[in-house]
Amino acid sequence: MLRWLTAGESHGPALVGIIEGLPAGVELVSDDLRAALARRRLGYGRGSRQKFEQDELTVLGGLRHGLTQGGPLAIQIGNTEWPKWVDVMAADPVPPEALLVDAGTGDEREIARNRPLTRPRPGHADLVGMRKYGFEDARPVLERASARETATRVVLGRAAAAFLEQALGVRLVSHVVSIGSVDVPDDAALPTPDDVATLDADPVRCFDPAASAAMVAEIDEAKKDGDTLGGVVEVLAYGVPSGIGSYVSSDRRLDARLAGAIMGIQAFKGVEVGDGFRTAHRRGSQAHDEIVRGEDGHIQRSSNRAGGVEGGMSNGEVVRVRGAMKPISTVPRALATVDVVTGEAATAQHQRSDVCAVPPAAVVAEAEVALVLAQTALEKFGGDSVAEVRRNAQAYLAAVPELLR
Amino acid sequence: MLRWLTAGESHGPALVGIIEGLPAGVELVSDDLRAALARRRLGYGRGSRQKFEQDELTVLGGLRHGLTQGGPLAIQIGNTEWPKWVDVMAADPVPPEALLVDAGTGDEREIARNRPLTRPRPGHADLVGMRKYGFEDARPVLERASARETATRVVLGRAAAAFLEQALGVRLVSHVVSIGSVDVPDDAALPTPDDVATLDADPVRCFDPAASAAMVAEIDEAKKDGDTLGGVVEVLAYGVPSGIGSYVSSDRRLDARLAGAIMGIQAFKGVEVGDGFRTAHRRGSQAHDEIVRGEDGHIQRSSNRAGGVEGGMSNGEVVRVRGAMKPISTVPRALATVDVVTGEAATAQHQRSDVCAVPPAAVVAEAEVALVLAQTALEKFGGDSVAEVRRNAQAYLAAVPELLR
Amino acid sequence: MLRWLTAGESHGPALVGIIEGLPAGVELVSDDLRAALARRRLGYGRGSRQKFEQDELTVLGGLRHGLTQGGPLAIQIGNTEWPKWVDVMAADPVPPEALLVDAGTGDEREIARNRPLTRPRPGHADLVGMRKYGFEDARPVLERASARETATRVVLGRAAAAFLEQALGVRLVSHVVSIGSVDVPDDAALPTPDDVATLDADPVRCFDPAASAAMVAEIDEAKKDGDTLGGVVEVLAYGVPSGIGSYVSSDRRLDARLAGAIMGIQAFKGVEVGDGFRTAHRRGSQAHDEIVRGEDGHIQRSSNRAGGVEGGMSNGEVVRVRGAMKPISTVPRALATVDVVTGEAATAQHQRSDVCAVPPAAVVAEAEVALVLAQTALEKFGGDSVAEVRRNAQAYLAAVPELLR
Amino acid sequence: MLRWLTAGESHGPALVGIIEGLPAGVELVSDDLRAALARRRLGYGRGSRQKFEQDELTVLGGLRHGLTQGGPLAIQIGNTEWPKWVDVMAADPVPPEALLVDAGTGDEREIARNRPLTRPRPGHADLVGMRKYGFEDARPVLERASARETATRVVLGRAAAAFLEQALGVRLVSHVVSIGSVDVPDDAALPTPDDVATLDADPVRCFDPAASAAMVAEIDEAKKDGDTLGGVVEVLAYGVPSGIGSYVSSDRRLDARLAGAIMGIQAFKGVEVGDGFRTAHRRGSQAHDEIVRGEDGHIQRSSNRAGGVEGGMSNGEVVRVRGAMKPISTVPRALATVDVVTGEAATAQHQRSDVCAVPPAAVVAEAEVALVLAQTALEKFGGDSVAEVRRNAQAYLAAVPELLR
Repeated sequence: MLRWLTAGESHGPALVGIIEGLPAGVELVSDDLRAALARRRLGYGRGSRQKFEQDELTVLGGLRHGLTQGGPLAIQIGNTEWPKWVDVMAADPVPPEALLVDAGTGDEREIARNRPLTRPRPGHADLVGMRKYGFEDARPVLERASARETATRVVLGRAAAAFLEQALGVRLVSHVVSIGSVDVPDDAALPTPDDVATLDADPVRCFDPAASAAMVAEIDEAKKDGDTLGGVVEVLAYGVPSGIGSYVSSDRRLDARLAGAIMGIQAFKGVEVGDGFRTAHRRGSQAHDEIVRGEDGHIQRSSNRAGGVEGGMSNGEVVRVRGAMKPISTVPRALATVDVVTGEAATAQHQRSDVCAVPPAAVVAEAEVALVLAQTALEKFGGDSVAEVRRNAQAYLAAVPELLR
Repeated sequence: MLRWLTAGESHGPALVGIIEGLPAGVELVSDDLRAALARRRLGYGRGSRQKFEQDELTVLGGLRHGLTQGGPLAIQIGNTEWPKWVDVMAADPVPPEALLVDAGTGDEREIARNRPLTRPRPGHADLVGMRKYGFEDARPVLERASARETATRVVLGRAAAAFLEQALGVRLVSHVVSIGSVDVPDDAALPTPDDVATLDADPVRCFDPAASAAMVAEIDEAKKDGDTLGGVVEVLAYGVPSGIGSYVSSDRRLDARLAGAIMGIQAFKGVEVGDGFRTAHRRGSQAHDEIVRGEDGHIQRSSNRAGGVEGGMSNGEVVRVRGAMKPISTVPRALATVDVVTGEAATAQHQRSDVCAVPPAAVVAEAEVALVLAQTALEKFGGDSVAEVRRNAQAYLAAVPELLR
Repeated sequence: MLRWLTAGESHGPALVGIIEGLPAGVELVSDDLRAALARRRLGYGRGSRQKFEQDELTVLGGLRHGLTQGGPLAIQIGNTEWPKWVDVMAADPVPPEALLVDAGTGDEREIARNRPLTRPRPGHADLVGMRKYGFEDARPVLERASARETATRVVLGRAAAAFLEQALGVRLVSHVVSIGSVDVPDDAALPTPDDVATLDADPVRCFDPAASAAMVAEIDEAKKDGDTLGGVVEVLAYGVPSGIGSYVSSDRRLDARLAGAIMGIQAFKGVEVGDGFRTAHRRGSQAHDEIVRGEDGHIQRSSNRAGGVEGGMSNGEVVRVRGAMKPISTVPRALATVDVVTGEAATAQHQRSDVCAVPPAAVVAEAEVALVLAQTALEKFGGDSVAEVRRNAQAYLAAVPELLR
Repeated sequence: MLRWLTAGESHGPALVGIIEGLPAGVELVSDDLRAALARRRLGYGRGSRQKFEQDELTVLGGLRHGLTQGGPLAIQIGNTEWPKWVDVMAADPVPPEALLVDAGTGDEREIARNRPLTRPRPGHADLVGMRKYGFEDARPVLERASARETATRVVLGRAAAAFLEQALGVRLVSHVVSIGSVDVPDDAALPTPDDVATLDADPVRCFDPAASAAMVAEIDEAKKDGDTLGGVVEVLAYGVPSGIGSYVSSDRRLDARLAGAIMGIQAFKGVEVGDGFRTAHRRGSQAHDEIVRGEDGHIQRSSNRAGGVEGGMSNGEVVRVRGAMKPISTVPRALATVDVVTGEAATAQHQRSDVCAVPPAAVVAEAEVALVLAQTALEKFGGDSVAEVRRNAQAYLAAVPELLR
């Protein structure tokens, strides 16, 4: 039973995350977590805010001398801009006059961050959030609905990935396969975990150089037009042992869990396992992965259209999941909305200046896949320490009859 | 807290389902549940087994005089073919000789159903299921992994749909938007709940007559070629109040829940909310649903690309979800596999003769959406009776400030 | 992740239970389940209804040829009195006139079971249930709130117990330690699993012959007085490996789970692990179980006041849990209530004639403990088959350093 | 769906807690949370460590300008002793030589806190924790198993209590009814929420002055003898609306949830709802709470033996729950154990000097009851803001038919 909660507002003092159920003995240092956060800040087409988001990470519990302890792991990501927000986002009441001056600068003119946000942005949680929770402006909504929250999940996912690699030899990689109208070709090579540095160095986390260049050009063009772009990311998990997840109930299916996790990322509107929608358009004879015996005498697949999941279980092939991200909803050229105080037509608030957040979203999706794989692997193998999980997994694999391998 | 479990094997005595947490006072009769099952049996391209699946439905608990009682609803779907399977699928041990003769016919020659299934079918749970649970043949795997299990969920979903309509005025409709290479045009009209009879009457549950005809032709062709087809289904939920689901945590997001539920259906490989992957290829200025004030003074959207979900919450527009189903894995012309007893190359077992199961899958997807909407609506509104849920929902909507509606 | 749901009304067609997450390969036959039900019917002081409750058990899914299959196990307990209740408890609406005649006898005079129950019984769910679910009489409440439902849990618990014994060597026994004012002496011997037949043969499931005789006498006296009795039951689990449950979070503690499960039994008002409330009255030097090294060189305890649970984990000693059951609320001499239709003072409905239900409640408590131990053991050891769970458990125990054993 | 996780080690940098699912609009300031922590530090018989535990509370998220925001509430309790533990409990590896000197004092002689703890204390998690998680000493176990963790739950419970009071008018009070051999008389008056200040001022949080004095004397005596004491605490919840919890499934029962939560507190070994074990010894005619119509025409109870819970639901009376706490396991005069490195007999580590922790445990139990009531109330009433929950609850109560009130 691996579970996690995140907390914190986009401009609050800190984001917080707790992951509970990780076995003891996972080797992990705080710099591993910082490095994960740094990868989330990468990507061409992101606005200047990323520079501010210095991600001051602190481990508050669960890690000792570089090893997890079996108990909950708690991390905090401090907001380096907090001094500017100390009044606007104060936990306790503040005198009204404190909201008339900018906490960061003392400037009485620049009080944008203090003003109620009453022009809900299409595509965001703003409007419905106000209705649901009874807010008079959108500030409390966007503070929590913002994708800033994914920083926490990236850190928790990094811990899950460390567990997966050390206990099971699972390694993950994520890349961008589409931005705007540019798609990586269907027959392009798939990156492996050894390509992570290459992907981190690519401006759009794309493994296909030609597509990468075209994506950068598309971002430049969109920026010029005051527009934004979405795209598609793919996560690959290598080395996942066969038998994670189950067909016995729909909510135990690995693909169902993966789909829920990917669709749970802010701005994601679609999920595919393996070839997904493309498979739906094929004939059966071209849609499955035939079972053959390889030169080593073990079972092999002649293809991996299923994305490593059959019958809701990992089948030993590379697990492959895609997520579709819509374009950033805060469009510089501005979308039509209404002011909910005056009732008048208006243009939507403009809170940030990113053109495209697809490359970092790949890193977030990778974290989500790591969390789901760790959770389902622990259901399969049990275990309270890395050594125990590893032992259980190896014994399981060793017990599979020779002709079923 | 609405939850459900299903049980039962494809050829066992019965399928069983329990749904727990439905409020009291939902008007429901057993014929409503039978009608739901009958709709799942519809569809051009299905094999002769559907005639056997007479779905002998019995309500075992939770319903009294046509009203739910607040406690768990339990249903059983008897297997009309059970006499033939009484030995093969007996709960208790049977003498070995009983497995040498066909229970149904007494025929000692025809004992196919008694034989171990040792040629795992690509695309099915067979191979991994044997590894995972330690089975020597695939019979126990396919008995539970089979899509036959969805019959149970269709019944539970029908109860959820009755609740949704009576408490909240939500009505659902499902249709087929793609089979094989045939797609319904992007600008085709969407069906409404008033079109259900029309859809039920269409051979492939398609709302576009031209596409329907082309789909039927494609099925005929695939059948001739000994091949199978997949496709894409869409579920529409009308009247969903704004504010179901939440942005505060990823697993509370309505879209995350919907994605998990749809991907949890056997053979589904992709999910989209609203325009999904198509939205990922658009620019931001063309991807969102602008907020305008309608003639009645209330907020309207100029489009519904988001599929009725923003920020993980229903936004008051039609909730629209798509699922991609792979072609049936049991391909008549047969896929390559290995026999796990002999180790030799073989062709996969052939268990049934459907060409295309997309139309009934739409009915299953509709049930899944109903279950998720009922679950998330109960989290929002609480309530132990239909009257209480309705009262809470109406009071909530009435309390939304005029300018936010 | 082991989970279960039950369904069904006390006088409905059947009770139903599903348990999901049991590994494959548990040896179990339907007669094992029938025997468990028979044990629940035992006990001096029970009314004539037990004779009617013939418990027609059917396995609907999850068991094949005497082995669990990894999927959900579903059982049904038919109501042999159903013909008498077919109208009163019909799932579908019945014509009003059908409720004026007794379905079982055709007698137009005897229609007690058809009449609304409007005099809620103190100590029962009647009154609050009507408020909560909006019922006009208590029939729907008592149909589900009745302890008849525990029959289902006894069956599910029997399956859990089979798993525990086969995978881990855990064996359970339950006994009665108090009825009314009669207590088994503090220093009485504890029964072991080898004493189950003896306990089954005792009229009150008590292991102390003198106390047993006194309990029988107390029941006779209470019956004469038109009164009812409660008592205390104890469940012992032998062979529980050390390390089930955890201290890392409160809801992972084995004792917390056990307490919730025991208190979840109808009519239970108290729970103790080990010496419970008695320990609270002792000094620390007399309250714990000192750690010594035994003759075999392994760690031993000089006592077991903790009941086998320290720090929320099984410590290798016998797990010992007690539950306090209040006297049957339906008191023959009748308690004061009000008629909720007339508003007048009244005496409570009298639905059955048991004096004491403590002995069968011990069997129910044993089932609950089995369910919790199976659930927590699976969290610790994982595994999808008995062989895998056993292998993981044995490897875990073998890996404990010699000096920690 | 209200849920929470805690994290952090006893001597780590901070304890952390997240509670998720609290409605928006709960009025709460950080000083409310500090006051709750201060109440947990009260109590005669506690050691000097309480002075160090200054509980530096910080709200990290979920609260803005004194109101909850609908998202997760996250709090941190800083460890004021952290400078002394910075090396011993460092998240990242430290050079071995850093563990040879005391971080707090620089003293090379006093390195007790740096030494491995190899003499597991009876009654603690030490021994089993090492086995379970594979630790070579008990440091990682006691750091998380320590009751220090309850500080976090007290804070989360305070937030839950604020919600309960503001949305539903529920108010809680906790008191001590037993320490060692001293019991409050059975017929003693029960405190009400208006007595909280009086209880806070009592040295042992006891409402009966004579019993309080005797308890203090017993503590003095135990201290003199180098011994420790346990006791029994009681939590009372006033104003709980009728209908929280349910009989329909055992894990929905309010008493089952309460029992699990109370038994989940460190060192608790018993739970009672209402008269608990005492009820088990009564006859039925003396064990239930008769239903009568009061002078105001509404239903009243002539007693409250059930502790406000019937059929697993709150019945409108005061909810009353008791928990039994064992004596502190770290007994100054020392219990026998073995050294797991040398294998030799030894006396148990002595980590602190409290004689009795029952008074603060009452505060912890009160927090647990608040959390459970908030969770179950939200399941009943739904709602995303205090206003919505209040409105739903009031409408529910108003809809109960006059004669059922």
